[in-house]
Amino acid sequence: MDNLALCDANNFPLTPITFLKRAAECYPNRTSIIYGQTRFTWPQTYDRCCRLTASLLSLNIRKNDVVSVLAPNIPAMYEMHFAVPMAGAVLNPLNTRLDAKSITTILRHAQPKIFCIDRSFETLSREILHLLSFDDSKLNMLVIFIDETDFPKTISSNELNYESLIRRGEPTSSMVAHMFRVQNEHDPISLNYTSGTTDDPKGVVISHRGAYLSSLGAIMGWEMGTCPVYLWTLPMFHCNGWTLTWSVAARGGTNVCIRHVTASEIFKNIQMHGVTHMCCVPTVFNILLQGKPLDLSNRSGPVEMLTGGSSPPSALVKKVQRLGFHVIHAYGLTEATGPALFCEWQDEWNRLPENQQLKLKARQGVGILTLAETDVKNTQTQESVPRDGKTMGEIFIKGSSVMKGYLKNPKATLEAFKYGWLNTGDIGVIHPDGHIEIKDRSKDIIISGGENISSVEVENVLYKHHKVKEAAVVAMPHPVWGETPCAFVVLEKGETNQGVREDSLVTSERDLIEYCRENMPRYMCPRKVVFLEELPKNGNGKFLKPVLRNIANGLVVSDENTVSSKIVQQRKEKRRVNSLTSRL
Amino acid sequence: MDNLALCDANNFPLTPITFLKRAAECYPNRTSIIYGQTRFTWPQTYDRCCRLTASLLSLNIRKNDVVSVLAPNIPAMYEMHFAVPMAGAVLNPLNTRLDAKSITTILRHAQPKIFCIDRSFETLSREILHLLSFDDSKLNMLVIFIDETDFPKTISSNELNYESLIRRGEPTSSMVAHMFRVQNEHDPISLNYTSGTTDDPKGVVISHRGAYLSSLGAIMGWEMGTCPVYLWTLPMFHCNGWTLTWSVAARGGTNVCIRHVTASEIFKNIQMHGVTHMCCVPTVFNILLQGKPLDLSNRSGPVEMLTGGSSPPSALVKKVQRLGFHVIHAYGLTEATGPALFCEWQDEWNRLPENQQLKLKARQGVGILTLAETDVKNTQTQESVPRDGKTMGEIFIKGSSVMKGYLKNPKATLEAFKYGWLNTGDIGVIHPDGHIEIKDRSKDIIISGGENISSVEVENVLYKHHKVKEAAVVAMPHPVWGETPCAFVVLEKGETNQGVREDSLVTSERDLIEYCRENMPRYMCPRKVVFLEELPKNGNGKFLKPVLRNIANGLVVSDENTVSSKIVQQRKEKRRVNSLTSRL
Repeated sequence: MDNLALCDANNFPLTPITFLKRAAECYPNRTSIIYGQTRFTWPQTYDRCCRLTASLLSLNIRKNDVVSVLAPNIPAMYEMHFAVPMAGAVLNPLNTRLDAKSITTILRHAQPKIFCIDRSFETLSREILHLLSFDDSKLNMLVIFIDETDFPKTISSNELNYESLIRRGEPTSSMVAHMFRVQNEHDPISLNYTSGTTDDPKGVVISHRGAYLSSLGAIMGWEMGTCPVYLWTLPMFHCNGWTLTWSVAARGGTNVCIRHVTASEIFKNIQMHGVTHMCCVPTVFNILLQGKPLDLSNRSGPVEMLTGGSSPPSALVKKVQRLGFHVIHAYGLTEATGPALFCEWQDEWNRLPENQQLKLKARQGVGILTLAETDVKNTQTQESVPRDGKTMGEIFIKGSSVMKGYLKNPKATLEAFKYGWLNTGDIGVIHPDGHIEIKDRSKDIIISGGENISSVEVENVLYKHHKVKEAAVVAMPHPVWGETPCAFVVLEKGETNQGVREDSLVTSERDLIEYCRENMPRYMCPRKVVFLEELPKNGNGKFLKPVLRNIANGLVVSDENTVSSKIVQQRKEKRRVNSLTSRL
Repeated sequence: MDNLALCDANNFPLTPITFLKRAAECYPNRTSIIYGQTRFTWPQTYDRCCRLTASLLSLNIRKNDVVSVLAPNIPAMYEMHFAVPMAGAVLNPLNTRLDAKSITTILRHAQPKIFCIDRSFETLSREILHLLSFDDSKLNMLVIFIDETDFPKTISSNELNYESLIRRGEPTSSMVAHMFRVQNEHDPISLNYTSGTTDDPKGVVISHRGAYLSSLGAIMGWEMGTCPVYLWTLPMFHCNGWTLTWSVAARGGTNVCIRHVTASEIFKNIQMHGVTHMCCVPTVFNILLQGKPLDLSNRSGPVEMLTGGSSPPSALVKKVQRLGFHVIHAYGLTEATGPALFCEWQDEWNRLPENQQLKLKARQGVGILTLAETDVKNTQTQESVPRDGKTMGEIFIKGSSVMKGYLKNPKATLEAFKYGWLNTGDIGVIHPDGHIEIKDRSKDIIISGGENISSVEVENVLYKHHKVKEAAVVAMPHPVWGETPCAFVVLEKGETNQGVREDSLVTSERDLIEYCRENMPRYMCPRKVVFLEELPKNGNGKFLKPVLRNIANGLVVSDENTVSSKIVQQRKEKRRVNSLTSRL
């Protein structure tokens, strides 16, 4: 058996860039990209990518070189997901919501050879380049501006321009043959910096093999059939659009690109192009609910909507599904190369009442097919927790789609891979039906009198109150219990904490605390409710809990006044201060 | 970038056996196997497999050892697809339709350490063991009988028995950890002998990596969602059930096992268990059409039916779809580890008339996602044929799901991998929409006056005649043209070649030739039609064209009598006598 050697015919490195070649060959008449008036077919996208790769090679881009890009969900951003790795280089998509200083920090760390900038970020980029000019790290990168494909005349002649690179690229047939056969499937394909910390950014390096497997895992988890029409609401810079950049090519689908994620843009594009699939974080639900509703008359079914980043509040899911979307919930991390768990629907759930269905849908679900293993383990003993839906532990995953590690950060890499698993930093339980439910980030767990309180569980109860629009719960210091929950709440429009209408109940701090006492165990109830006009969010729409914790640290609870140092000590021991990974 | 080392967390060998562990964890309440009165859940199947593996290890089964099995589609056969490779060994599923002599030849070649035999093949196995006893090859294998799980009392005490191995197996937790982490994903998982030739059998060695990728490719090509109820009509010994053995576990589905493929068994099981998916060769369509039709009243949709092995005749597809099946057509080879092309449905086809849809469905389609490349090439020049739907060439494929090679047959392996591709031996065209259509096996092409005639095309025309039930076309010698088509035809019941009813048209050789002349170019028309009661078929239900060619060689065409030696010479040059691969 061992005499059978591997050869060209039976050993081809796994990489998602082969999906582009296949799409051009198998779906030659299908539209690959729609963007305003711009339309490309798969053979055209293939041709443009090959030309761009040829140009990158002629600019001396080589294996492992980094190409950074700052752009919204435009065709260039999509094409670079193929063309950059086809040159052997590593794509570094930057979060467009970051400020100049943060981006400068990332660029210094990533050391790109090329920096592509969408024209709309010209001012920001001038600021970035200005900051870099004071730098002694000798970052010597080529800057390339991306202009609208349908307005190529805005190019000034003294700049390198994306469209001119595509025009000038001259791929030969032997060059093309090399583009799709990567040297090693473990080679890096993308470098994605995680958001959410005030520390130095962590650059997650993902491999061709990992991206290939994750793209297929997403297709199967979502049950995405052939030729979807995919609307790009989720930023492609966000973990390569949860790897959907590559999955859509794998399925010969159509990418509907939009520059701005507004309700009217979303609804207009769904209508015009028969969108079948889209991804978004749950905060986009609110954007949709505030827009002009979707007219479903010309559609044969709902828009399949994959959501993640945080557990979708049931009340929002219910409302958004009534608008004509069918919500599927997934959980992932940049470190897992995108989706890691999918809340796979079970037929028998169809017989349950809607509220129960929504509760089940809010669970993170089961490990995707392309992961080797998923488990929830006691962080002290490293033993798997019982499948009782109650005992909490940290979620661990393992498999070839897990990141290669953090760039130039061996300490963090070692921490993340402790015990031979990816330590996600998320605390959850396993239910008897095998589905995992996240209770909290390990750093967001509130430890009150030695009891673990999941901030997510308290938030879920608050969301069920009909006047609560947004809720975030964090720990605040408590003289007796060490910590106690503090809730930050945004009320629905027209409802203030003073109670504007006579016929409506007054929604005060006391009311909400009373409501919580009726709906959860006493020890879990917030002792403080702060009403805000808006909750602070990060670039990905996630609540900035560190900011809220800072506020909560300055607040006092007046009902008790004995400090129990023993409990404070207990809290310190149990808490894992630094979370290692950043959830999608 | 290159400093990031692989570790346990991010580098797990790809193998479909991990699907079993995941199914037990993610689908703990779901039924894995239904077989008569027997029911197992996924945790039970997992437990049984671990026990069997432990027993195999205790019997000193080690890496690369072969375990042969002769059994119909029963639970043991399914379990062995996991338990044998979990011990590091290689499964060798034998075609139960072969005679003792053929099986003996395979066993001598495969040199198994263990031979598992279903009790129903006891007589056959005695004959095999008798033949082997005259052997000087020192084949020293353990024989294990498989009895019905629900009738364990039939075991005689002096035999090794499958159920007792499962009962006695004592997997330790460290043993189990090893079972799912194979040493190398390129290690062999299965050894499948191909049917159809009179030569020595060729043993196709497939790898864990290949089986993993093919199983996922089949899921995506078929768009098989989570938790299917899969009816085992296609033999598992046939290329591991086209890799569906592993795909069903990947999807947490239910395997409905049946011993005998009869219309009544199929319909009964579809009704009782809500079957959603099944696979079969097109000859099973006839079995279904002759049975008592399916009652669809309690079903929400059709049964998804994947067919392959030969192009499904449109007339049969039409009839079987009216029975409540939805037919999808795929093409594969044992050498490709199962499915290689899927006729992916295109939305725009829904607007076409039914007959045109059926014609499109008969095409083999596009390369599955997990293959790296698919092409049709001119065998002389090695250039890709134009995508015109006319120019014929040989189908070539490439990718990690292609076999490792033929066991102990370096010459055949080298031949199969000529030019760095798997040479399928099938002749086809590429249509402008990217779909590949097979015109013939290279050895079945009829060369008449220098023109290539696809026997499949002539057969397709014959099948459209309302009185033709089965048709097979082969070459017969022709004094002028070298070769000419000869048709072997089975008529629908009640229709004889004498024409039994006055109100029906007489169906004679002349009538059929006349019909062909009206429906195809003159040079393609059969000059001879032979009516048979039944067509000779191989173990997989495929027509035995070599037998028909032998008959045709003895027939003469009387209308011309000059032998053109030049044309005969031409024919000899063009024909590739030995086909290398065997289609599914």
